[in-house]
Amino acid sequence: MTWTLNPDRYFSPEPTRRRLARTLYQAVKDLPIVSPHGHVDPRLFADPAATLGSPAELLIIPDHYVFRMLYSQGVPLEQLGVPRIDGGATETDHRKIWQLFCEHYHLFQGTPSGGWIDHELVEILGVTEKPGAANAQRLYDHISERLTAPAFRPRALLDSLNIEILCTTDAAADDLVPLQTARQDPVGRRIFPTYRPDALLNLHDPAWPVELARLEQASAMRIDSFSTFLEALWQRRVFFKQLGAHAADHGVLTAATEHLSQAERERIFQRALGQSAEPSDTARFTAHMLIEFARMSVEDGLVMQLHAGAYRNHNPHILHRFGRDKGFDIPIPVEFTRPLLRLLEAYGNDPRLTLILFSVDEDPYSRELSTLAGAYPAVKLGPPWWFHDSPNGMLRYFDQVMETAGLYNTAGFNDDTRAFLSIPARHDVWRRVACDWLAGMVLAGRMDETDGASLARLLAYDLAKIAYRFEGAPHA
Amino acid sequence: MTWTLNPDRYFSPEPTRRRLARTLYQAVKDLPIVSPHGHVDPRLFADPAATLGSPAELLIIPDHYVFRMLYSQGVPLEQLGVPRIDGGATETDHRKIWQLFCEHYHLFQGTPSGGWIDHELVEILGVTEKPGAANAQRLYDHISERLTAPAFRPRALLDSLNIEILCTTDAAADDLVPLQTARQDPVGRRIFPTYRPDALLNLHDPAWPVELARLEQASAMRIDSFSTFLEALWQRRVFFKQLGAHAADHGVLTAATEHLSQAERERIFQRALGQSAEPSDTARFTAHMLIEFARMSVEDGLVMQLHAGAYRNHNPHILHRFGRDKGFDIPIPVEFTRPLLRLLEAYGNDPRLTLILFSVDEDPYSRELSTLAGAYPAVKLGPPWWFHDSPNGMLRYFDQVMETAGLYNTAGFNDDTRAFLSIPARHDVWRRVACDWLAGMVLAGRMDETDGASLARLLAYDLAKIAYRFEGAPHA
Amino acid sequence: MTWTLNPDRYFSPEPTRRRLARTLYQAVKDLPIVSPHGHVDPRLFADPAATLGSPAELLIIPDHYVFRMLYSQGVPLEQLGVPRIDGGATETDHRKIWQLFCEHYHLFQGTPSGGWIDHELVEILGVTEKPGAANAQRLYDHISERLTAPAFRPRALLDSLNIEILCTTDAAADDLVPLQTARQDPVGRRIFPTYRPDALLNLHDPAWPVELARLEQASAMRIDSFSTFLEALWQRRVFFKQLGAHAADHGVLTAATEHLSQAERERIFQRALGQSAEPSDTARFTAHMLIEFARMSVEDGLVMQLHAGAYRNHNPHILHRFGRDKGFDIPIPVEFTRPLLRLLEAYGNDPRLTLILFSVDEDPYSRELSTLAGAYPAVKLGPPWWFHDSPNGMLRYFDQVMETAGLYNTAGFNDDTRAFLSIPARHDVWRRVACDWLAGMVLAGRMDETDGASLARLLAYDLAKIAYRFEGAPHA
Repeated sequence: MTWTLNPDRYFSPEPTRRRLARTLYQAVKDLPIVSPHGHVDPRLFADPAATLGSPAELLIIPDHYVFRMLYSQGVPLEQLGVPRIDGGATETDHRKIWQLFCEHYHLFQGTPSGGWIDHELVEILGVTEKPGAANAQRLYDHISERLTAPAFRPRALLDSLNIEILCTTDAAADDLVPLQTARQDPVGRRIFPTYRPDALLNLHDPAWPVELARLEQASAMRIDSFSTFLEALWQRRVFFKQLGAHAADHGVLTAATEHLSQAERERIFQRALGQSAEPSDTARFTAHMLIEFARMSVEDGLVMQLHAGAYRNHNPHILHRFGRDKGFDIPIPVEFTRPLLRLLEAYGNDPRLTLILFSVDEDPYSRELSTLAGAYPAVKLGPPWWFHDSPNGMLRYFDQVMETAGLYNTAGFNDDTRAFLSIPARHDVWRRVACDWLAGMVLAGRMDETDGASLARLLAYDLAKIAYRFEGAPHA
Repeated sequence: MTWTLNPDRYFSPEPTRRRLARTLYQAVKDLPIVSPHGHVDPRLFADPAATLGSPAELLIIPDHYVFRMLYSQGVPLEQLGVPRIDGGATETDHRKIWQLFCEHYHLFQGTPSGGWIDHELVEILGVTEKPGAANAQRLYDHISERLTAPAFRPRALLDSLNIEILCTTDAAADDLVPLQTARQDPVGRRIFPTYRPDALLNLHDPAWPVELARLEQASAMRIDSFSTFLEALWQRRVFFKQLGAHAADHGVLTAATEHLSQAERERIFQRALGQSAEPSDTARFTAHMLIEFARMSVEDGLVMQLHAGAYRNHNPHILHRFGRDKGFDIPIPVEFTRPLLRLLEAYGNDPRLTLILFSVDEDPYSRELSTLAGAYPAVKLGPPWWFHDSPNGMLRYFDQVMETAGLYNTAGFNDDTRAFLSIPARHDVWRRVACDWLAGMVLAGRMDETDGASLARLLAYDLAKIAYRFEGAPHA
Repeated sequence: MTWTLNPDRYFSPEPTRRRLARTLYQAVKDLPIVSPHGHVDPRLFADPAATLGSPAELLIIPDHYVFRMLYSQGVPLEQLGVPRIDGGATETDHRKIWQLFCEHYHLFQGTPSGGWIDHELVEILGVTEKPGAANAQRLYDHISERLTAPAFRPRALLDSLNIEILCTTDAAADDLVPLQTARQDPVGRRIFPTYRPDALLNLHDPAWPVELARLEQASAMRIDSFSTFLEALWQRRVFFKQLGAHAADHGVLTAATEHLSQAERERIFQRALGQSAEPSDTARFTAHMLIEFARMSVEDGLVMQLHAGAYRNHNPHILHRFGRDKGFDIPIPVEFTRPLLRLLEAYGNDPRLTLILFSVDEDPYSRELSTLAGAYPAVKLGPPWWFHDSPNGMLRYFDQVMETAGLYNTAGFNDDTRAFLSIPARHDVWRRVACDWLAGMVLAGRMDETDGASLARLLAYDLAKIAYRFEGAPHA
């Protein structure tokens, strides 16, 4: 029997609701994809001959969603080909890695990763058998063949997958050369950089001087004071904007914001230059810098994204052996109401600022995020982030956020992925879940069907363009 | 096509459940309304000629649920006629305000505010077209005409809307003159004051001396010590009780309770008299006073309500321009288990105390509130508060609270509104959602249909009367 | 009309889902019961002539779930026969206690306790009328008669109720004599002890010296230093393991873990010996000991269970009159991500450790617990605990945990009960809710029906055996 996906997946089984969800979905499923926040490598689009690699490179080796699940069940990362930074050996036979993955395919039953991979395999790669130990090598052959075809070049896929806008995430000191090359191609024009200065705020990190040197080089200026630091950061924003950036992104442990006096800023910055900054310096400095970045956003119009609550690299064993971003970023509780007070006091009423909030802790949804977004003109609420970019996570988000924030104070969908081929899968889940939720709202008499249809379109497409300033609001 | 409301609104679309929900709802929908906690202005009922004002005065200008949503989308509060306290100009043409509101009606799609206003317009005001830019002025005419009819005088509405009990919220130093006048009318007898001493506990607030002076005047005594302060507060309770009060209400940032020594109380109080009290003094003083108020409730039988977790006036720009209660009260995380320990140790086992807890943070629902209410004889759990007074908020409440607290340890419904005409709309949502939830419980074999029907009545009507001591429990 | 239970209880009313849930349930409902964590008294199985006592002894007097609900509605515990530790009088007429319980049976409508008792009465005890004031004495007669029949001896029930594994919870210093006696019987072999050293960590508790003396006696060694303390604890583990233990259990207020230096450990321990330890000593000592216990689990293979977040004996009035565990353990917020860092750094990647986490605060489910279990090889997530061992609690657990943790990183079900006869009722609720949830997943196209069926079996039976090391994983 051929492996297929349920055409009604993610819809409620209740027939009336399913029927209406299907109707709403039909009208939005083929809308172009707007991906305003993600981590796809721009080099994929710089070189017209670039490919997506082997099946293991496509789906396993770079995907911490995938290998952390196998690791949690006792499979060493070495056997999955994850590169070691300590020089140790790691599996290089991609067929073996793929075999191991297929043997553990059951681990992904009912998980969002499982759903995305199913979608990629069936809908994009034309796989017709569910992966397992027995067919792993046959599937490897099939997928490898596909991935070498011209239609599977990243630039061609950008077009065939109907991706209208794809924003990358780039270090503030990045030269954006691959992105510039990509943007010389007509299809590549759909790619936009995003300004991310996080590494430059980690004052106490031993790697900070390297980051600073990179910023000095990129901005072609000497940075020996807080004000030159600020100037260099600003110059990079100008550069990013010239190359098409619509947004800046800030990943923080807490959402704390605080004004430091001029003397304090300088004192902390000088400690950093002297490599004697403490973690508490980083915390206070970051809290101050968020207000500076909000001010810059008011001035240059870059949308400000704030991602809070991930405790990074929780597992020192993995960090030292395999490096950062290896599946061990674990959420902690986050607050927004009091921490954001100083930033919002300064710019929360300013129509020139768009501040999009993301939380990997769901508790603030109904408590703080929906109420802030539903009151401050500057604040919009980002879609469910990371572990919550899932069918259940989306339903909880709709359930807890929409009544108070109102749908117009949200930012549509972000796929936030580094797995290029999962982009359509992720947007499809969002569109299906949104339509199912709207169908439920219509049938409960909480909005009429015309409103349901217009909101389906907004959620699937327009809200992301509005929030990230790719176009004005249709209603405004 | 005439605009109508779905007669099955807020019911699950699944036909069996919808059918049973409808049956349960039919039996309770016309029960009288018991509104034991709210903010309707008693002056509406003191003057027999009082009206509800213009459509803008009825639905927009005083309603922070409504204008904060438009403000969040960039509409200045000045354009919505919200009065400024700094003397600045504000729109006075109510037709313009109404027009602006109708042009933004889509913002309320799927929100509880939208549902209440739909109900008011269709069911009470006889509107037959959904508001929009095109028909705004026609609707204004229609509604204005209705509002001037004798049947729309507040006293007449109290009767026709079937409101049996309406509790107001009144400052402890209030003379309650409008309420006394209202209660001379037979219909006005349904109105009861509620004793709220919050402003008198804000020791560090520059406005505190004014509040204290008001208390001195109201109690006709000189307050120069903690003990005279306490005596004055007690006298006011006696006065409120004579005028029909059943309850006291306390709005606090945290639920902390703490015994202060006699010396400490006096020391803090003297600092307040000397206008040198700090915010920390207010916090500790409030923590102590909650225990004093619990003691007074044990003595005089006033039900003690505790509302915790709203960070008030988060937006200083709005506060300074428009004053308090303008849509910027944002929740923060709240705990109850440890903070309430001292109060419950003193009076939690005392059958003379009824302590009703409200939280604008939902996290403590399943964790702390259901377990405290399900164990302490004095503790009852209030209905979902504020942002959670919504279809989803109610379902989360039923889901997270009822299994552990048991339904008999809850307090039925509060509408908590200052928008008089929204009272029937809000109670109708509660009754519908409660019946739908009960239908689900019956169909899942978790209670039988007879129990479902008796609980529907309790939730719609009896529990509020029992909790607020308007009558005994039918089962007791 | 005869009182019966809905054969489709806990299933969704939507017919397609209900049908599939029923099919999945049929295949697992008769699987043997694996109860790897609970509090049944082993003396029930040591004496072949032991009985379950009177109806009041079976269902009311020892069950804090039951008597706290009546107490919350004003029924004094004395009237329910709960023994007093202060020597005061308490009701001894079990018929009167039973009458009172039946008169308040409505309090349990829609609660999990109500569901379990309904199941016990109808399915096990053959009751055919719903309890109430009128039939209470008749029911008492009926149940009493049953309970004296040989088929209702605990050993016979262990067999007829199809209980394959029953783990008790035993103080580390316990001699396990009743358990040893029970295990001499073929049926009694199904009972396994669990090592629980909690009382020995409460250094500041006035009862600590007594606990220590017990440990000295049990281990037949003098304990005058931290190292002898550790040695004695280890010896008890050896003893427990010899008698069949598969697991250790640790109940803590917070999940904090911290390495203490050798000097610090000794200093704190000596303060405890001198009876001058403070609560803060207990907290830090516990944080250190959790790491020691993890190390021991790595060495001896006992599964490590960690139960966090219950604030014990919140009500001092009840504590002093009736003692511990009387319905006043109230949850507090708990974190895991940062507190567990030290323990996981040391042993989280070690395949020899199984650490099962339980939380009575649900907030960490989607935030911390699912992400830790979905990444660390040593970590598994325990089922919904205590107040969350309920139909709604289970659905929230499946909803919030499974997407990120994956089902294979969970530990199946625990009944965690001291009420022997409620064991089948509780497992039946879990099996029904799990099948209903799986049916929803299948119908939403999130897994196929074959996977749904295999996961139903895992959830009902295999996962508990795997997690507690009674057998290997079928897939591994």
